[in-house]
Amino acid sequence: MKLVFLVFLTVLLCGSCGQIDQENNPFKSDNMIIRISEIEIDPDYFTEYISILKEESEASVRLEQGVISIYPMFLKEKPTEIRILEIYADKMAYESHLQTPHFKHYKTTTFKMVKSLKLVDMESIDVETMPKIFKKLNNRERI
Amino acid sequence: MKLVFLVFLTVLLCGSCGQIDQENNPFKSDNMIIRISEIEIDPDYFTEYISILKEESEASVRLEQGVISIYPMFLKEKPTEIRILEIYADKMAYESHLQTPHFKHYKTTTFKMVKSLKLVDMESIDVETMPKIFKKLNNRERI
Repeated sequence: MKLVFLVFLTVLLCGSCGQIDQENNPFKSDNMIIRISEIEIDPDYFTEYISILKEESEASVRLEQGVISIYPMFLKEKPTEIRILEIYADKMAYESHLQTPHFKHYKTTTFKMVKSLKLVDMESIDVETMPKIFKKLNNRERI
Repeated sequence: MKLVFLVFLTVLLCGSCGQIDQENNPFKSDNMIIRISEIEIDPDYFTEYISILKEESEASVRLEQGVISIYPMFLKEKPTEIRILEIYADKMAYESHLQTPHFKHYKTTTFKMVKSLKLVDMESIDVETMPKIFKKLNNRERI
């Protein structure tokens, strides 16, 4: 932790360097794979697609220890535009996820419904606060 | 819950309608405000901006009951492109958040660093699974 703090301080004192070195990035979130998937679907299949995706993401979070989040959303202004926040513990967890029956079912059944797919890799800015997020939902009365 | 299930079943049986009626959407996530903020920042301020954002999002999740998630990330391929998954319990929680000292501090200090800002409103696809997500992180050894 001391080393992380020192690296952080050095970068802070270094000031604005313009160039951002991804390797020495003090905000690097260990081995996790974090991604926002941007998917455009055929409007004719909206209900069907959402049902399959919902089933797949629920099963992934419930059954796979290495799947930290598969959190699916769609744009209010354009519901055929899907966004999924995906967080995997590491590369192995992600590769194992690709081999599960629920993922394979999702992939094959929705193949014809997907118009475009873009996988955008992310870096988390605050790894320490992550556990506190969403946990709050557990304490909410309506759940 | 029975009513929700009936609405869900009706839409499912209705099949693919092409037109998506947002008001009768069975996946509507009650009063929550869910959004992905897309922010482009000046590369000269990368380290400074990230530090301020990290501080602000941590304080919001810790101090505000109505802030369920302010989860900041940036694109690995283009770190000056920030994405924040924001979830507020309702409109009142969001409006209250805008009045907090930590949000006001973030807003004023980063004003000159932000090149563009787009607030993209989202609908959650699976409200029931939300509490299980991220909670898993609490059980991970390294935390």
